[in-house]
Amino acid sequence: VTEKITIIGTGNVAHHLGKRFKEKGFTINQIVGRNAEKAAQLAAILGADFSIKLKKIKKDSAVYIIAVSDDAIVDVAKKIAKNIDNQLVVHTSGSVPSSVLQPYIKHFGSFYPLQTFSINSQPNFDDIPIFYNATPTLDAIRTPPQYFQDFLEKIALSISKKAYLLPDDKRIILHIAAVFVNNFTNYLYTIGEDILKNEQLPFDVLKPLIAETVRKIENNPPKDMQTGPAKRGDIATIEKHLDYLNNHTPQYLELYTLLTNQILKNK
Amino acid sequence: VTEKITIIGTGNVAHHLGKRFKEKGFTINQIVGRNAEKAAQLAAILGADFSIKLKKIKKDSAVYIIAVSDDAIVDVAKKIAKNIDNQLVVHTSGSVPSSVLQPYIKHFGSFYPLQTFSINSQPNFDDIPIFYNATPTLDAIRTPPQYFQDFLEKIALSISKKAYLLPDDKRIILHIAAVFVNNFTNYLYTIGEDILKNEQLPFDVLKPLIAETVRKIENNPPKDMQTGPAKRGDIATIEKHLDYLNNHTPQYLELYTLLTNQILKNK
Repeated sequence: VTEKITIIGTGNVAHHLGKRFKEKGFTINQIVGRNAEKAAQLAAILGADFSIKLKKIKKDSAVYIIAVSDDAIVDVAKKIAKNIDNQLVVHTSGSVPSSVLQPYIKHFGSFYPLQTFSINSQPNFDDIPIFYNATPTLDAIRTPPQYFQDFLEKIALSISKKAYLLPDDKRIILHIAAVFVNNFTNYLYTIGEDILKNEQLPFDVLKPLIAETVRKIENNPPKDMQTGPAKRGDIATIEKHLDYLNNHTPQYLELYTLLTNQILKNK
Repeated sequence: VTEKITIIGTGNVAHHLGKRFKEKGFTINQIVGRNAEKAAQLAAILGADFSIKLKKIKKDSAVYIIAVSDDAIVDVAKKIAKNIDNQLVVHTSGSVPSSVLQPYIKHFGSFYPLQTFSINSQPNFDDIPIFYNATPTLDAIRTPPQYFQDFLEKIALSISKKAYLLPDDKRIILHIAAVFVNNFTNYLYTIGEDILKNEQLPFDVLKPLIAETVRKIENNPPKDMQTGPAKRGDIATIEKHLDYLNNHTPQYLELYTLLTNQILKNK
């Protein structure tokens, strides 16, 4: 692999993407970040140069991956624009259309790995679906010339077994679904822990149940795996639960009621 | 192991508990169920007798496990009472106090495995926490005499590595927490699938994310693992999501709003 990659950002996505690209033989050309210490640290791990100056980034990368928070993307694009000519610039956001780059960048796109990254965990990259899109312009500079979308597909399939071309307006849907199954699910775990803590019971006792809940949907649609008092229409049990919540943890009463009513309705 | 066990019920709990007890060398004395075919089938698997007559169950078991739906427990107790003298009778419900057995049964208790059982999945029993309680009366009949609670602990630890003595009024709390982390989580998976289906995207793309969400809480409190737009206070993204939901799947708007507000509040 001879393609050089510049990564802008030093957070979890920058970190994990950078490591994975390096592992697969790509050259990480430069890490660019506002925080010099973090940029230097990540650059050292990846064997890359680093810079804190967006306006002076190196020009010789094939692709520039903007892995910063959503509200900083446009500002980054503005600042790097002067040094970007025919190179491809993508961002990694689930919610921001790649077209926000258009006023500043000629060849733009997105490169969205659908996963929750945290500093201490090493996800299995092979399984992470990567969703990409780019202006389908032919890159005449390269030898052989190729479409930017094909280029993104190629690098996506270098680091994962799953790559999907997906237009901007559909990516947000993935992100919403991800919020439900990841962020909201984690919040339900927090509630479980909190309810047990009130009674000096350890959260650990719920972990086999949590693991089994996931195991059951590996090969079955979640709709078919629904169980519990609401699914059974077991009103007596639901009323006991509401009564307990009302008396002990009323902050979860509304959520219990809403979820129960929706499951009852879809039963 | 010489203790004989009678199981009343032929559903998932009866099935999995029976198989596990047999695997660990217990004798399943009799399976009792309303449906003759199901009772015969389970009895055959377990090398047990079977009966459809609650009033004529065999008297020579050490413990009778009532593994039927919550609203049938009292009726079962009434009907078997005539043949129960000093034997122990427990039920497996998370929500029903064992004291509902008291009017009919002298030595009663509960034996609650905290897990979601389904017919096609083989959970790892070693890890399933079992919560038990019983009237702490000495069983003078047995040799050596022992307290019923000790007996339940002993059989619980024969089939699992985790057994906890827990009074009736606390068991319901486990059940409520289980509803949040299992039943409600599964419903969130269903929503994720439904949102993707609207856009012809396969649910499979969410599975690595779901697996990672669980993996992150193996060694960390879920509260510390919370991520997402609400946790970040990323109102711009939240508004885009609300806008999409409002236009495409309004049935999930209220739930998204409630969960987001609660995470925002606890951030």
